[in-house]
Amino acid sequence: MRNLNQHTITKAVIERLADTQDERLKEIMTSLVQHLHAFAREVELTEDEWFKGIQYLTATGQMCDDKRQEFILLSDVLGLSMLTVAMNNDKPAGCTEATVFGPFHVDGAPHYADGDDVANGAAGIPCRVRGTVKGLNGEPVAGAVIEVWQADAQGNYDVQYPGLDEPQARGVLKSGPDGRFHFRTIVAEAYPIPSDGTVGELLRATGRHPWRPAHLHFMIKAPRYETLVTHVFRKGDQYLDSDAVFGVRESLVGDWLAQPDGSYTLDFDFVLNPGK
Amino acid sequence: MRNLNQHTITKAVIERLADTQDERLKEIMTSLVQHLHAFAREVELTEDEWFKGIQYLTATGQMCDDKRQEFILLSDVLGLSMLTVAMNNDKPAGCTEATVFGPFHVDGAPHYADGDDVANGAAGIPCRVRGTVKGLNGEPVAGAVIEVWQADAQGNYDVQYPGLDEPQARGVLKSGPDGRFHFRTIVAEAYPIPSDGTVGELLRATGRHPWRPAHLHFMIKAPRYETLVTHVFRKGDQYLDSDAVFGVRESLVGDWLAQPDGSYTLDFDFVLNPGK
Ligand SMILES: [Fe+2]
Ligand SMILES: [Fe+2]
Repeated sequence: MRNLNQHTITKAVIERLADTQDERLKEIMTSLVQHLHAFAREVELTEDEWFKGIQYLTATGQMCDDKRQEFILLSDVLGLSMLTVAMNNDKPAGCTEATVFGPFHVDGAPHYADGDDVANGAAGIPCRVRGTVKGLNGEPVAGAVIEVWQADAQGNYDVQYPGLDEPQARGVLKSGPDGRFHFRTIVAEAYPIPSDGTVGELLRATGRHPWRPAHLHFMIKAPRYETLVTHVFRKGDQYLDSDAVFGVRESLVGDWLAQPDGSYTLDFDFVLNPGK
Repeated sequence: MRNLNQHTITKAVIERLADTQDERLKEIMTSLVQHLHAFAREVELTEDEWFKGIQYLTATGQMCDDKRQEFILLSDVLGLSMLTVAMNNDKPAGCTEATVFGPFHVDGAPHYADGDDVANGAAGIPCRVRGTVKGLNGEPVAGAVIEVWQADAQGNYDVQYPGLDEPQARGVLKSGPDGRFHFRTIVAEAYPIPSDGTVGELLRATGRHPWRPAHLHFMIKAPRYETLVTHVFRKGDQYLDSDAVFGVRESLVGDWLAQPDGSYTLDFDFVLNPGK
């Protein structure tokens, strides 16, 4: 335990995990230490670079508050979020695919009745969204709790407007006895993820654009089914093949249809995976 | 770029780094993404575990302020700090070895003259520290800037006392024309690293003790020499073989000698590596 060098220190750190009670935590920490050290060795990390990393992580944590989650955003742009989603949502064929949760979900969104307008004043082109929640065998799922959230016409979520305390363009609905749901909102538009923090700094330094294709977030919960966290992406969006957070699934692309009165409609059905 | 899965996403994220101007940043980010993803795949990280990780990193950032650096502490207990120090301080035989910087250095420490007491009121057993700063060929290094910092008898650094704005047990000195320096302070004692934050939580969860063997920090700068960041560890300390941050080098163990009047002395010489 004295005179550890770059070749011996990894084993020494892992040995120090021997008394970890929680076997899963031991497994995770052992792997984390190995990969963290392998990274530092592979790039021959300098002390200045190490310190920049410390400062970067610190600033990322300090960007976070009850309305901003910069570490989720960082995980998103590094593909870690979508990788985790992909590993944990290997559903049977026919089920609606999952995608990233994103940093803009807020607990305690308002509840709405079928047909209500969840926009609640958010700017955008009016849009009706209709669909059915089903199980894998086509059975309607009644009383499913459907949470939706989205950006407005300016590409901002409500939480991105300082001083706006009213939830806008987010809400909780329930499917009817036939599994159907229906609500009014605004048309989803493409938006750049927030670039005024450490994640924006990283995107600029790596020459990456911050755009996400237009999408509407859904989280659907029902007893005896796996919770589904997903989006519906907007057909024709120019960023479908370069989503800043790697979340696009072909099966999640929906068609927002223009109506004669200038409004839009989106029809999209969801198929839940029976719980284990 | 659609339908990425756990096997294809890593390549897709790395391809997105193609426009990075800074070649070194590209190299670092490429390696980081590969190892981060490999870790998540190896442990088959669940979505709950991912979220706990997000919360952990966020809380770690939010523990940090101008007097507390929890991410350095985290890097220290994961052995990443000592690994980085080891990789970057492969000095010629005869040079004083480096060790971790630690989270308790503060910029702007007070300057003291030779023989002054840097304790400045910190509690502890009085101690005189004497030594010489030399180059690799034995030449004295005159005018070296010697910064020292240490914990007090209670195992706390000054910055750990809320409301204490006076720097204690830290200071900046200069070596004389013969390379010699001399100052008064208090005896270094073993101390537990701060356990009231996320790092303490990790140590408890992994059954690790938080103790560091008693040590006195030094940072020595001189023109035409490599800056030396190191400690002198106290001979006989019970934690020399289980330092919570893996920093002990045998060559850095010094002998604090008890004097008839109850005070102590430490004599330790430093050998700087000629700059490149
Ligand atoms: Fe979104
Ligand atoms: Fe220390």
